Amino acid sequence: MHVDVVFTPDEAGSAPTGIVIDVIRATSTICQALAAGYERVFCAAEVEEARALRETLGEGVLGGERHAVTIPGFDLGNSPREYVEPTGSTLILSTTNGTRAVVAAARRCERVFVASLLNLAAVVAAARDAGDDVVVVCAGVQGTLALDDAFVAGRVVALLGCDRTDAADAAARLVTTWGGPEEALRASKSGRNLVENAPHLEADIPFCSRESVLDVVPRLVALHETAGEIAL
Amino acid sequence: MHVDVVFTPDEAGSAPTGIVIDVIRATSTICQALAAGYERVFCAAEVEEARALRETLGEGVLGGERHAVTIPGFDLGNSPREYVEPTGSTLILSTTNGTRAVVAAARRCERVFVASLLNLAAVVAAARDAGDDVVVVCAGVQGTLALDDAFVAGRVVALLGCDRTDAADAAARLVTTWGGPEEALRASKSGRNLVENAPHLEADIPFCSRESVLDVVPRLVALHETAGEIAL
Repeated sequence: MHVDVVFTPDEAGSAPTGIVIDVIRATSTICQALAAGYERVFCAAEVEEARALRETLGEGVLGGERHAVTIPGFDLGNSPREYVEPTGSTLILSTTNGTRAVVAAARRCERVFVASLLNLAAVVAAARDAGDDVVVVCAGVQGTLALDDAFVAGRVVALLGCDRTDAADAAARLVTTWGGPEEALRASKSGRNLVENAPHLEADIPFCSRESVLDVVPRLVALHETAGEIAL
Repeated sequence: MHVDVVFTPDEAGSAPTGIVIDVIRATSTICQALAAGYERVFCAAEVEEARALRETLGEGVLGGERHAVTIPGFDLGNSPREYVEPTGSTLILSTTNGTRAVVAAARRCERVFVASLLNLAAVVAAARDAGDDVVVVCAGVQGTLALDDAFVAGRVVALLGCDRTDAADAAARLVTTWGGPEEALRASKSGRNLVENAPHLEADIPFCSRESVLDVVPRLVALHETAGEIAL
């Protein structure tokens, strides 16, 4: 069993098991929503795609932000703290980087798990049970490496404890340069953006920094034209 | 002044100044050859392109290896230790990952410098003198991150001492996880490949690990159809 990490969705790298990470905040929100009782989460890259999907489905809670503000006509934002109680059975989440990573993983992997720190132990156990090689796909930000996602990738690599590529070793090594998850998430550009531009969302950082508090393994169950469908 | 790092040539990222790294061993060899007295180095991705280039130029020392063995009909291998004395004025080096990184940098940057640990201080001084934003382009191995290149990128970031992207911060952080350059280069897959599969080339690792021993700043002076032309 080998583990590889790609820090941006465009990079080379494939394996039977894919683990997608966009810890601030799409995959944290997806894990939280499914753990709270949503039955399925659609992630769509564009706002208009999310709206069209609700039209097609005839139902769905619309979640999403642009510039840390809930999108006009949407029900909720991107904060995982808004999803501790379900307000419907279907969540349609607009998330550009997260969706891109899910789609990239779907193209390369037989099965795709969604990971955050919240469900770290559960997703690592599922990957180990699958028994195949693993590629961790970091969403990053607009095609570039994000330190917060790299940190979580390194935690996955450390817990998997199997053979590593250079990239997987780099992720595991990075983890050791911080005192813990919250320090790493705060050091990232995504974390700093929240603190500087959306102080009301700063509490998302400690929320997303909690490790292995949710026993859920979200999986990609279908890839639709403009969205990934995720369920337990 | 900002510095960014891309760990694989395909990643997003551009800046006026590009610094290309393929430390084991293409860019170490290019720096060594130009410091020794070669007047120009052509790097070509394919063996046949290198041969065709010598045909066109009517001259040139052919350098290259496949599987750690000098290519049939070539004059020298890829080891920088073979280039401490010039045996001609033009070197044509066959290097797949190195050429790919040079071409990628040329597409995104106004000026492209070639870096290794050997000329680290000189290339950092040249980038600082240029005064523009910098992107460090790691060659990696077949489109994946290489720890040896990531280490050198981190040293460039640390010495530049300017604002960093998340990726540049990751590279600088990685550096702190090793005791020094040789330990990092030996930890990389490229380093381990040399030790395991070509023991006669193991001495290339300590050779390439020496920091700032050559006062040269190789620059890309022309991009030909199938090769980059590098000179001081």
